[in-house]
Amino acid sequence: MRAILHVCTTCRIVAADPDAPRPGALLHDALSSAALPEGVELRGVECLSACSQGCSVALSAPGKWSYVYGRLGPGDAAEILTGTAAYAAAPDGLVPWRERPAIFRKQSLARIPPLGPTQD
Amino acid sequence: MRAILHVCTTCRIVAADPDAPRPGALLHDALSSAALPEGVELRGVECLSACSQGCSVALSAPGKWSYVYGRLGPGDAAEILTGTAAYAAAPDGLVPWRERPAIFRKQSLARIPPLGPTQD
Repeated sequence: MRAILHVCTTCRIVAADPDAPRPGALLHDALSSAALPEGVELRGVECLSACSQGCSVALSAPGKWSYVYGRLGPGDAAEILTGTAAYAAAPDGLVPWRERPAIFRKQSLARIPPLGPTQD
Repeated sequence: MRAILHVCTTCRIVAADPDAPRPGALLHDALSSAALPEGVELRGVECLSACSQGCSVALSAPGKWSYVYGRLGPGDAAEILTGTAAYAAAPDGLVPWRERPAIFRKQSLARIPPLGPTQD
């Protein structure tokens, strides 16, 4: 199964013009018009509950760690796709630190372990 | 499959004594010694990458939204378990706002949609 790049389309950026198009929607547009890395599916989502840290994206895939990144903007699309390609290629989703783009090293909001087998 | 309550055991709390036991480990201890809700498995994890927002926990289950909560402490164990029980009972993990404990309403760091089917 593919890795999923979720993009919050309703994210604002703090102090952004409230009447302008949502920065999250602009980021989604920028990602939609780019060539996606192999094995990646882009999905817009209405809220990632990281509203004070927008724009935000999340990466998830079966059997892999999930990640949420924040404080992003439409201008970060290329770097997001670079980091997403590395995530998609990593069997467990754990990309070596040095191979992560700067925004993924510095702007992680959280990560969640893969579900794995239950203990009973 | 069970819902998983992940607890970061290495979380510090800002301004906490660096030589004292990690608040994350104390929170894990408090949760371990409590009765877990039906259908919930507790798992300690070494880092949820929410280090500036500790203590942190994450909820996940197959086919459900995942959630990460932060700014918690060992004293929040009972309320975490109340919210976890509601999560475990909700088929998609989406608990009505009014039924969430205050820490889950106010201290969400992020949420991630379920994987769902791919679009190709």
